[in-house]
Amino acid sequence: MRSDDRLCLVNGNWADSVPVLDRGLAYGHGLFETLRLHRGVPPLWSYHLQRLSLGAERLAIKLDSSRLQCYLDTLLAHCPGEGVIKIILTAGVGGRGYRVADAPEPQYVLHWFPTPASLSTWSPQGLSLTLCGHRLPHNPGLAGIKHLNRLDQVLARMEWRDEFQEGLMLDQRGGVIEGTTSNLFCLRAGQWLTPSLHECGVAGVMRQYLLDSLLPGMGLSAFEAVINRDELRAMDELFVCNSVSGVWPVRSIAGIGSWPVGAGVQVIRARLQQEFPCYH
Amino acid sequence: MRSDDRLCLVNGNWADSVPVLDRGLAYGHGLFETLRLHRGVPPLWSYHLQRLSLGAERLAIKLDSSRLQCYLDTLLAHCPGEGVIKIILTAGVGGRGYRVADAPEPQYVLHWFPTPASLSTWSPQGLSLTLCGHRLPHNPGLAGIKHLNRLDQVLARMEWRDEFQEGLMLDQRGGVIEGTTSNLFCLRAGQWLTPSLHECGVAGVMRQYLLDSLLPGMGLSAFEAVINRDELRAMDELFVCNSVSGVWPVRSIAGIGSWPVGAGVQVIRARLQQEFPCYH
Repeated sequence: MRSDDRLCLVNGNWADSVPVLDRGLAYGHGLFETLRLHRGVPPLWSYHLQRLSLGAERLAIKLDSSRLQCYLDTLLAHCPGEGVIKIILTAGVGGRGYRVADAPEPQYVLHWFPTPASLSTWSPQGLSLTLCGHRLPHNPGLAGIKHLNRLDQVLARMEWRDEFQEGLMLDQRGGVIEGTTSNLFCLRAGQWLTPSLHECGVAGVMRQYLLDSLLPGMGLSAFEAVINRDELRAMDELFVCNSVSGVWPVRSIAGIGSWPVGAGVQVIRARLQQEFPCYH
Repeated sequence: MRSDDRLCLVNGNWADSVPVLDRGLAYGHGLFETLRLHRGVPPLWSYHLQRLSLGAERLAIKLDSSRLQCYLDTLLAHCPGEGVIKIILTAGVGGRGYRVADAPEPQYVLHWFPTPASLSTWSPQGLSLTLCGHRLPHNPGLAGIKHLNRLDQVLARMEWRDEFQEGLMLDQRGGVIEGTTSNLFCLRAGQWLTPSLHECGVAGVMRQYLLDSLLPGMGLSAFEAVINRDELRAMDELFVCNSVSGVWPVRSIAGIGSWPVGAGVQVIRARLQQEFPCYH
């Protein structure tokens, strides 16, 4: 399927639909990645591919990464240089009920969109977050990967309309986990903390890049921690991040508190923009 | 789409695919029902419709039940009198990311299949179950309804091949919840118990029919309870049930124990078959 406002490849062919028997539809048996595209290149592609591979292993989907690369190259050769690419990888058609087929043929859906307008509501003056009532379940077998079972995020997103820019989600014990579309970082006593995601949550690609590369490269200390809701108030600065939009300061979380947009997050934003100019 | 081995209606048209942008694929934002078909009629249809309506309300999907009935009538007019009908109701195309569209148009997929051959492996001499290592997460907002986020069942079903007929799933605390495709009933001191499903699990249509109608109509006492794994051994009889295959005695659960196929489950099977001859 090709039109001005989107382009879609299904298993390498221009198409706009998937079989009703696809396990992605039937059970959410699949994964996705959302890539920012800038000057014809998706930043952090190796991180996206790494997470997709990990997820595919957990869900017994035989990802052929050279095939995926070939489809991505085809899409990149036809789409504008700016925008967003969504990759959906499903377990394909087959199997008996929940049981996976013996030789499953995955389905690759690659979709280009223009950069979403909603990004422009995220301001360097800081985001205003709601605290979502719907809580993330503990599910170690699915934690971290970006699978297609996303009803928790859908239910959480129903709790506000335009009055907030993002919603913070807790787990069933009241622990802080993440935003509906972003990960959270908190500055305490000069160290950056981000919630550990061993029991629930999506381990974002931007989060991983910050932890592995950008923050250590700036001489900053950053690690995963269990963070309770009540600890947030005492943090010096907060930011949320994802690979589509970059790093954004958090100004307030309704019912919890507010934070300044401090030097800590400013310097990270500046360095990220140096590395990848699309994140500004 | 029409062929000898299946028939499929998408929004009332013979078709075989859904748009890649459907929220059912993107997020599992939808529901399903699997109906047994016998002599051209789906038994327990009113129970299926009731659960589907409850699920649609929870997921903000505007189910039009007269439209669904019309599609079902069309399918029934064309399909054989025996088999299985799967209904998938999704939130359709639209919305911005997780955010639901203001006036969502749901998608109705109705699919006829022949009765699955795997049913013939379920024997009146009793099923042999495995105990699944993958556990169900506590998620009260999604518990009970039959939504499309079914990776827990997919992961559990990967734990065995043909050596068992079903797998028993526990919750994160070790409480007994259900089979991967069935609900469990246990006989203790003359009373039938079934796990309560307020925090996780699918409230099966056959389970509901047994609780509301069949068991009380036989003068039997049946209620929901919290059941721990260690309590199972002391039960007098066990059975699993679903609306495709009916009621089946459990002979053993690996690592937990074994049970006789007693008079309690026999008399329920006989009465169910009187009411609906397809469940034999």
